[in-house]
Amino acid sequence: MNHINEITHIESVRLSDDGRSVVIIDQTQLPNRTEYLTLSTAKDIWEAIYHLKVRGAPAIGICAGYGIYCLALQIKAEDYDGFLREFRKNKEYLDSARPTAVNLSWALNRMERIVTGNSDKKITEILEFLKEECLKIHQEDISMCRAISEYGLSLLKDGDGILTHCNAGPLATSRYGTGQGPLFLGKERGMNFHVFADETRPLLQGARLTAYELQKAGIDVTLICDNMAGIVMKNGWVQACMVGCDRVAANGDTANKIGTSGVAVLAKYYGIPFYVLGPTSTIDMECKSGADIHIELREPEEIKEKFFREPVALKEVKCYNPAFDVTDHNLITAIVTEKGICYPPYTESLAKLF
Amino acid sequence: MNHINEITHIESVRLSDDGRSVVIIDQTQLPNRTEYLTLSTAKDIWEAIYHLKVRGAPAIGICAGYGIYCLALQIKAEDYDGFLREFRKNKEYLDSARPTAVNLSWALNRMERIVTGNSDKKITEILEFLKEECLKIHQEDISMCRAISEYGLSLLKDGDGILTHCNAGPLATSRYGTGQGPLFLGKERGMNFHVFADETRPLLQGARLTAYELQKAGIDVTLICDNMAGIVMKNGWVQACMVGCDRVAANGDTANKIGTSGVAVLAKYYGIPFYVLGPTSTIDMECKSGADIHIELREPEEIKEKFFREPVALKEVKCYNPAFDVTDHNLITAIVTEKGICYPPYTESLAKLF
Repeated sequence: MNHINEITHIESVRLSDDGRSVVIIDQTQLPNRTEYLTLSTAKDIWEAIYHLKVRGAPAIGICAGYGIYCLALQIKAEDYDGFLREFRKNKEYLDSARPTAVNLSWALNRMERIVTGNSDKKITEILEFLKEECLKIHQEDISMCRAISEYGLSLLKDGDGILTHCNAGPLATSRYGTGQGPLFLGKERGMNFHVFADETRPLLQGARLTAYELQKAGIDVTLICDNMAGIVMKNGWVQACMVGCDRVAANGDTANKIGTSGVAVLAKYYGIPFYVLGPTSTIDMECKSGADIHIELREPEEIKEKFFREPVALKEVKCYNPAFDVTDHNLITAIVTEKGICYPPYTESLAKLF
Repeated sequence: MNHINEITHIESVRLSDDGRSVVIIDQTQLPNRTEYLTLSTAKDIWEAIYHLKVRGAPAIGICAGYGIYCLALQIKAEDYDGFLREFRKNKEYLDSARPTAVNLSWALNRMERIVTGNSDKKITEILEFLKEECLKIHQEDISMCRAISEYGLSLLKDGDGILTHCNAGPLATSRYGTGQGPLFLGKERGMNFHVFADETRPLLQGARLTAYELQKAGIDVTLICDNMAGIVMKNGWVQACMVGCDRVAANGDTANKIGTSGVAVLAKYYGIPFYVLGPTSTIDMECKSGADIHIELREPEEIKEKFFREPVALKEVKCYNPAFDVTDHNLITAIVTEKGICYPPYTESLAKLF
């Protein structure tokens, strides 16, 4: 039976109905307020990216594409050179919102190539091409997420318990997501999963975003603290772990949200498959192993103060706050991409993708 | 070199200087406010226990001992029978503050036996015996913690990195503590440990209490989120894990704060010794294995709301919130008691203690 279920698809980013603004869901207000923001000015868009109102590498890329197109519509230029000058001013400004977000400059560069590649065309035509391109960036992301979800779903069966860590669902991407994509696709097909969502300290993306997305889509979700993943596995409630990824090395070592590697160690101990899901664009063949991946360290304030009514530790207490950790390739059962499922040895299976 | 360092000993409970009240540190106000409360009435003492202003099984027992003694001083009775009647009224009332706290009724029963065993004595004499008994309960706890700490310390060497989970330090006991006892005793002897304290979600005892105690004692402590224990171990910064225990089964399976078993699995994976420290009174030889230990489930509110400025997940999102988990005996390197260190096989080594 392959019927389609009505599920609420959260759209993290889209073009407004009049095609002149970007509409985003303000992720900083979730889960308490579902607020949509209509962004029309360069400052609006810059601030939305800077303040993480839109987050998740793919979602940022899509937002930047739509954003630079909407700003291009507003350019008052006499000729092509004037148009290009203004376009580049906008591009540079938006690009400064999150300098380390790869998808941001990737999407902006892609849009710029449309302008520079059509210098012989009328500006109205260039604007049409720009519109096509940003819609294409969005559509490509949906297709990619859907392909990942399809491959990921083939690893699950109806009724499975799935453990998730952090957020790699629709909010971080366009539709479906990567790490959580199979859950949404399965739901559309009438499958029922029991999801255990790690809250994911310190920034609580699991509680605030993953549990929100799944609940809104009518998927059975139970929120747990990160340190409860072990007991949930021991109880026999988890048949697979599914996580996204920030960077995959050529040997399969995977950088993802802090705590991911701990989940993988637990999964190994309890004999549960551990799957990493992400687009081939996150696989970095230049990076030989996890040892080459730089781990960002963040402020103690995130652990001790953020979200809390009052500080939960003394001011003078030190914190260690790495944003990511690296999961050893020997803990990963399979890496699921839009081009297919890779199994160990990853040095071989990942290389075949390129 | 065996010199004694000046360290600040936090006293969770003591008799007031005039010997007529109980002085406690209000643990619900930590770490932001170090407030001492002087408890003189039955209602004061009951509420302090009920509202967890004093917490940790040994600390509750000591508080109850001092409490019932101070209340006995206030009894206006004509004869022994009247005194016993009033004493029992107080006892029953205090006992109702936390019905499942074993040490509470244990200490109250012990104090009652002083009264019933001296029915031929004058009330002024009985009051003297009661005072001796409650001071003895306190002193015995200090001796027990010190013995555990001494054995535990023999497993460590100067400069070691130690990972802790939850709180089993001075605040939960009298002095030193159990799980964290060796760190305080080592500090007194001029040893330097580098402690990584798991914050211990959802109630954050690691952040609020353990990091507080260690910092106040001048011990090097770094607070981490629970899901960072793995990366800290992988970094090579941890030479031993030390935790307390709520109940140890005859085969060595150990119930302790939720998340403990996950730490033990990580320690095994990274080849780091995992030690459980606690008094022989927590070893339950009637309990064959962890399967016989009942795990208390608590409210979703603790995960989603408590401590937070606003809820971190939707109201309708379910939570699974077990207060404890069971660590398999095969993950435990040694169990450290006041009578010595037990190694596997625990069915034999624990039995020898009794």
